[in-house]
Amino acid sequence: MLVIVELASGVRRFRELQRAIDGISQRMLTLTARRLERDGLVNRTVYPTVPAQVTYELTDRGSSLTLLVKQLADWSREHKDSIGASRALYDLQNPDQQIR
Amino acid sequence: MLVIVELASGVRRFRELQRAIDGISQRMLTLTARRLERDGLVNRTVYPTVPAQVTYELTDRGSSLTLLVKQLADWSREHKDSIGASRALYDLQNPDQQIR
Repeated sequence: MLVIVELASGVRRFRELQRAIDGISQRMLTLTARRLERDGLVNRTVYPTVPAQVTYELTDRGSSLTLLVKQLADWSREHKDSIGASRALYDLQNPDQQIR
Repeated sequence: MLVIVELASGVRRFRELQRAIDGISQRMLTLTARRLERDGLVNRTVYPTVPAQVTYELTDRGSSLTLLVKQLADWSREHKDSIGASRALYDLQNPDQQIR
């Protein structure tokens, strides 16, 4: 989801995506980018430089999803603290349940 | 996501949710319902009948997410076939990659 939000601002190289998405591992970003490419949401372009340069950009299909994804990201940010509080309360009331 | 879409139509018992969400296992529905409850998106009510009756309904926070989730569900339905075609083409072009 965060990859789509970042690419909504334009073309990005792999390193730029990695820096923009706090805490994402190289492996997870590689896997995520491939999945988005496989779903036809992102185009991956490899430039024949040495070393090879790779850029990512949203396809039309990817762009059509951007608004929804941004709204979801906003919703998540808005409700982050209250969800955190609900989780803490739930864990207190249900110490036996491991659904972290 | 589908649990939220279903609960947007009102209170549901566990079996009703299971029937409404094609192919979801009892274990996955139980886990999903607990996660939604833990996030404060769903209320779970247990009635002291024999056997006990359990119902689920959206909280205000859950309801505030419904519109976005419905739009995402609609988007997914709309793009299901074209994403399927992209995946098939990607798998042909990248036989070595296992990201099914």
